[in-house]
Amino acid sequence: MATSTGKKNAFYAQSGGVTAVINASACGVIETARKHKDKIGKVYAGRNGIIGALTEDLIDTSKESARAIAALRHTPSGAFGSCRYKLKSLEANKREYDRLIEVFAAHNIGYFFYNGGGDSADTCLKVSQLSKSTGYPIQAIHVPKTVDNDLPITDNCPGFGSVAKYIAVSTREASFDVASMCKTSTKIFVLEVMGRHAGWIAAAGGMAASEDCDLPIVILFPEVNFNQGKFLAKVKDKVNKYGYCSIVVSEGVHDRSGKFLADQGLKDAFGHAQLGGVAPVIANMIRDKLGYKYHWAVADYLQRAARHIASKSDVEQAYAMGKAAVELALAGKNSVMPTIVRTSNSPYRWKVGEAKLSRVANVEKMMPKNFITPDGFGITKKCRDYLAPLMQGEDYPPYGKDGLPQYVQLKNVAVSKKLNTTFKLK
Amino acid sequence: MATSTGKKNAFYAQSGGVTAVINASACGVIETARKHKDKIGKVYAGRNGIIGALTEDLIDTSKESARAIAALRHTPSGAFGSCRYKLKSLEANKREYDRLIEVFAAHNIGYFFYNGGGDSADTCLKVSQLSKSTGYPIQAIHVPKTVDNDLPITDNCPGFGSVAKYIAVSTREASFDVASMCKTSTKIFVLEVMGRHAGWIAAAGGMAASEDCDLPIVILFPEVNFNQGKFLAKVKDKVNKYGYCSIVVSEGVHDRSGKFLADQGLKDAFGHAQLGGVAPVIANMIRDKLGYKYHWAVADYLQRAARHIASKSDVEQAYAMGKAAVELALAGKNSVMPTIVRTSNSPYRWKVGEAKLSRVANVEKMMPKNFITPDGFGITKKCRDYLAPLMQGEDYPPYGKDGLPQYVQLKNVAVSKKLNTTFKLK
Repeated sequence: MATSTGKKNAFYAQSGGVTAVINASACGVIETARKHKDKIGKVYAGRNGIIGALTEDLIDTSKESARAIAALRHTPSGAFGSCRYKLKSLEANKREYDRLIEVFAAHNIGYFFYNGGGDSADTCLKVSQLSKSTGYPIQAIHVPKTVDNDLPITDNCPGFGSVAKYIAVSTREASFDVASMCKTSTKIFVLEVMGRHAGWIAAAGGMAASEDCDLPIVILFPEVNFNQGKFLAKVKDKVNKYGYCSIVVSEGVHDRSGKFLADQGLKDAFGHAQLGGVAPVIANMIRDKLGYKYHWAVADYLQRAARHIASKSDVEQAYAMGKAAVELALAGKNSVMPTIVRTSNSPYRWKVGEAKLSRVANVEKMMPKNFITPDGFGITKKCRDYLAPLMQGEDYPPYGKDGLPQYVQLKNVAVSKKLNTTFKLK
Repeated sequence: MATSTGKKNAFYAQSGGVTAVINASACGVIETARKHKDKIGKVYAGRNGIIGALTEDLIDTSKESARAIAALRHTPSGAFGSCRYKLKSLEANKREYDRLIEVFAAHNIGYFFYNGGGDSADTCLKVSQLSKSTGYPIQAIHVPKTVDNDLPITDNCPGFGSVAKYIAVSTREASFDVASMCKTSTKIFVLEVMGRHAGWIAAAGGMAASEDCDLPIVILFPEVNFNQGKFLAKVKDKVNKYGYCSIVVSEGVHDRSGKFLADQGLKDAFGHAQLGGVAPVIANMIRDKLGYKYHWAVADYLQRAARHIASKSDVEQAYAMGKAAVELALAGKNSVMPTIVRTSNSPYRWKVGEAKLSRVANVEKMMPKNFITPDGFGITKKCRDYLAPLMQGEDYPPYGKDGLPQYVQLKNVAVSKKLNTTFKLK
């Protein structure tokens, strides 16, 4: 055990799929910690998330200039590297927790800030219980992040608002495009979006149409079992009325039996299995059954990395969550997560709240039924009122003379190892 | 024949695939014509391009407010509708030309502004010859537009710079994302971009990496015959060095025999042919041969409709080309196209030039050999120096409270028909 003088260092790590604004949370954590040097020593980041802690591969963020840390606010992705690695339960894999404590103790780490989604909240919860079970003093605070917007209690999750804005903007733009082409050419545009379980991102596609911008949009949610007959009738109906139609399809769309639409058993000319997306499946279906000419796009990483069109609300909240996490730690809290509490829709107002990790971990928030129109293909006014504030405002990064956004690449200087033991990842 | 008093009306039409800035050219044409009401009467737009002229389906742009016309400058797509419809030669299809003159005469049209790419320049050339061959006085001016950047003489084409910016920005953002994930998850990101014949758009992906932003990018150009062995070795090399790699692949990539890589003879479980993109083909190849985890995206219409991240140079040039077309008409010119003439790279300076349509029509400008690195997978400094100015500057559209860009949808009021004849499209 390190002999601490009361001033502990902090550990910060990014976990799971990254977003356009997770670095804004990192910025909030580090800038706030730097303002409290009397209580928090250095902020060490895990290189590639929790793996960095397990392998004693820590990054000394104090080696980064104030300017570089400030630039994290406008830089997408995970600046310290992320990972997909879920800790097992204490009973199932005690050696991981023993190792964490060994590393934390060696580097005098008393604060654990974990920036991620539902799985990561579970890891954070387990770490928060270490002080009780092992006697090593550690305060674990979770910083919410997920484009899937599926964490409970918090009104929304940092990362989602910017994806929502990107998908809504892109759907509007592509719809204008296909409207121009539909007389002699493309009548259908299909956009595949993320969201394997919850349709929050697909719902954002519905925002492309509004009271002052009439566009035909059909949404396929993972929450609604796919029915080919009803779907094709809906599309035909839109084409008859507008001359064209845009379809926003969630990657997680499945039929009543649970079979993913994307899983079509595609084989190439040699009989090898091929992995495709759901967008071409929908496009081929339209061609075969309705005969319309189509185009399709798969946004994939582009949607969650699109810092260039991030929502201002989202950036502010991501930063605020990082800042609040440090403040909660300073207030002596453990096993909690700062949350976003909406206090007013119009004008949009929100404040920072707090949730117990035991109530957050492993709980998935789905779209409420009353956010989806009765036909299953659109969003309700209630859904619009919820989504609009999250997409509000622009927060543009600076650009260089080459027309490219100036995102920061940190030096990521390693902290000298203090242990002569190594750890083998499972 | 209409008995004209010397003041003729103008016809304007959008042709072929639309872009983020073709409406900025429309804005330039209409605003400039409105400033010369002594010489130009009304601007009639063809509904869905040249089809509008053939079917006497004209739009009276004078019914649109100055504000609505100004908003065209920041609205993507073709506000009057476009079409894919190429006029045959005068010999092959005289009835089309007779019909055009019938409609032009009925509506006292003396100016023909055609906004499109290479095929459209050919149509415009044919119309420009009508005054000689038929005696009906018409001045035909082509307004350059194409995301493919493949028109000759002009330094670049309006529409391209914005796609280039979108692809470069997206590639940079997605590369940051995969860099964060590569330790335990995705190591390869594949982005499919437009460009069936020329690799200009794919080249823009190379701009994602720069002197102050080191990223591993591999480009697959349609100009370079695909060689699987060399390609996989290049990717492996990048992954060994960086831990990950981004691949920007043009839809037109083909092997030595000319076979498109996208054409893999995919069949679904029922043996039906399926159309896929080239991105999943590359992704599957990587999985099978190198075993790396991957993600892929197909930008499709999103890239050419992305007005939200349009290049300022591009918007200015698109407007300038529309303005110059009207000025050329006022100067009595026929059968010409305004061009962009680059006079300096740094600082970027350009002026408006002029080209004979006979030298533009049906000529395709490919990437110069010295724009592609000797290994065939990257861009040279010469290429960077060419591309950077075209992507320079941002020109953001206004946004509403819902976080969406406010694009204009015109009223598109029809001009009363004067003919009692109809025309059957071929």
